[in-house]
Amino acid sequence: MNVGVLGAGQLGRMLALAGYPLGLRCLFLDPAEDACAGQVAGQIVAPYDDPGALDRLAARCEVVTFEFENVPEAAVSRLAARHPVYPGPRALAAAQDRLNEKNLFHELGIDTPPFAAVSSRGELDAAAETIGLPLVVKTRRLGYDGKGQAVVREPAELEAAWKRLGDVPLLAEAFVPFEREVSVLGVRARSGECAFYPLVENRHRHGILYLSRPRPGDPFTDAAQDWCRRLMEALDYTGVLALELFQHDGRLLANEFAPRVHNSGHWTIEGAETSQFENHLRAICGLPLGETRAVAPTAMVNLIGNLPAREAVTAIAGAHLHDYGKEHRPGRKVGHVTLRAADEAQLDLSLQRLLSLLPG
Amino acid sequence: MNVGVLGAGQLGRMLALAGYPLGLRCLFLDPAEDACAGQVAGQIVAPYDDPGALDRLAARCEVVTFEFENVPEAAVSRLAARHPVYPGPRALAAAQDRLNEKNLFHELGIDTPPFAAVSSRGELDAAAETIGLPLVVKTRRLGYDGKGQAVVREPAELEAAWKRLGDVPLLAEAFVPFEREVSVLGVRARSGECAFYPLVENRHRHGILYLSRPRPGDPFTDAAQDWCRRLMEALDYTGVLALELFQHDGRLLANEFAPRVHNSGHWTIEGAETSQFENHLRAICGLPLGETRAVAPTAMVNLIGNLPAREAVTAIAGAHLHDYGKEHRPGRKVGHVTLRAADEAQLDLSLQRLLSLLPG
Repeated sequence: MNVGVLGAGQLGRMLALAGYPLGLRCLFLDPAEDACAGQVAGQIVAPYDDPGALDRLAARCEVVTFEFENVPEAAVSRLAARHPVYPGPRALAAAQDRLNEKNLFHELGIDTPPFAAVSSRGELDAAAETIGLPLVVKTRRLGYDGKGQAVVREPAELEAAWKRLGDVPLLAEAFVPFEREVSVLGVRARSGECAFYPLVENRHRHGILYLSRPRPGDPFTDAAQDWCRRLMEALDYTGVLALELFQHDGRLLANEFAPRVHNSGHWTIEGAETSQFENHLRAICGLPLGETRAVAPTAMVNLIGNLPAREAVTAIAGAHLHDYGKEHRPGRKVGHVTLRAADEAQLDLSLQRLLSLLPG
Repeated sequence: MNVGVLGAGQLGRMLALAGYPLGLRCLFLDPAEDACAGQVAGQIVAPYDDPGALDRLAARCEVVTFEFENVPEAAVSRLAARHPVYPGPRALAAAQDRLNEKNLFHELGIDTPPFAAVSSRGELDAAAETIGLPLVVKTRRLGYDGKGQAVVREPAELEAAWKRLGDVPLLAEAFVPFEREVSVLGVRARSGECAFYPLVENRHRHGILYLSRPRPGDPFTDAAQDWCRRLMEALDYTGVLALELFQHDGRLLANEFAPRVHNSGHWTIEGAETSQFENHLRAICGLPLGETRAVAPTAMVNLIGNLPAREAVTAIAGAHLHDYGKEHRPGRKVGHVTLRAADEAQLDLSLQRLLSLLPG
């Protein structure tokens, strides 16, 4: 079976590598000639909105998915006319616009920080008044890894935030001084069957995820999985979905969701019975889901900007290097390492060794 | 780093898939246009003894390995003039000839069934006399999966065995009515560092492996690993080596070794901290070895001739399908399934379910 994939970055690359053993072959569409999934599978190099390229992709696959949520709607519609596209257009519409996303959370009884739509300088002032400061101002569309965001701590900073971001529709929400960031990954099959990975604790640095650690048995597991299930069912979702949450004052607040495999699920390659990549493919190809239980204590560390020496990483007990084959650039995710250990104490030791190889 | 590989079958395919995350890219040479490793990595389609093709391979890699032991010596010499070839020519020379192999075992104090070289009808009779019947007669070169072998149970069968096999040099050895077939996989780094996987119990059917089950803590582990180490050290070996053994009358007898990754090590992809494929690549690329401990109870079942329905295999708890992407033909290894479970009882249940999907 052939799977068409929009986007050929590292998520696509890991999808392709997970697909081969299952007899599923990924074919990518991505405008970047050096896209890293194109090193391990076929790639059509063309813009996402190129009708001829979309038709060539459609001619060579039976089902379509994507590795990033900002896929042009026209591309999805054109492909959807010929093949199932998972997760569907409803999930994309909700994920592409932060206001739609927050409204959906609200409708489903999923708690969020207070928020307001902002499309004028006056609405920004009103939001600051109603919600209070500090306030996070975000573009409604096309933000990722902390881009397209500003934190307003003082009234005097409202003008600068407006100047930087105000030429597009915005969302303002309360800044949450969270104790912990967590995420839950769910997967839903075409049949409606759902499965959930253990809750993951995440740490970010400069807006980019750098450490994820699954916490099986975490007391917030049931609440997070319940919200994730509501979301997947409301969207009639197929595939892997990641819901990012803040833990604040003893409760969870939903931050955002990603309608795709997610960086905070990379640990599942070595750490779960079935990886998120395999389960996404199983779901969209109509196969039964694989088990999502953790098989060992693991932690995942992103390699950002460049890779430490391969010799040094592979010398660490239980270290599994994932080099994405990307050109090194500051701030770019170029790989990750999953550490797996027999127990948490061993894992902590390996994690210390790994972190000592990384800058900062 | 680029790794040249002679042979592009399923072993090569799994090497390539293990290489990508490490930033190691395999490039294959294989005369078969539809070789299955060529579906996941680059392949030069040409005979193994084509000097131009060998030079093109050499121009695009920094180290060379192979996925089968019957590589032409001239090919290895040509490549070895430009790059390190691992495991080296000594290992190949010993593995390509069953008499050399058995003599090497003998020199190293590794027990074997009684054996004798046979190159005439008279020598065959003499071997039957000295060793006794039943006798296994094998071609010294180019045998695999039970091919090029005859079992002689009665003196009257000697003539038929001679007629079938006697046009090439032979080896005759005592037929061992073994209690159990086991194998041990070792890996040796360029530095001389060695590591060993747990002992594996193997079952064959019609001369082809169909079931492997690692047995960590098996009482024969130390003896098998000791022999494997002697072999690797004597050959100044680099890479993964598989030593196949019979257990008979409370002791081990060496049957043969393979200077490469091995079917009885496929369980390591999901079942060991580091797979045999990754460790082979680590060894030949000068990286430190990865841990070889089992991470969970596992069993590996070969899929021979054709694949059961993907839906049925993936519905089994802890089943990891490996479809080699090969055309289905009777007697051909076209895939395998590794079952992983939280405990041995769960593993037995999954194994029963899987075996019920297979013919025979």
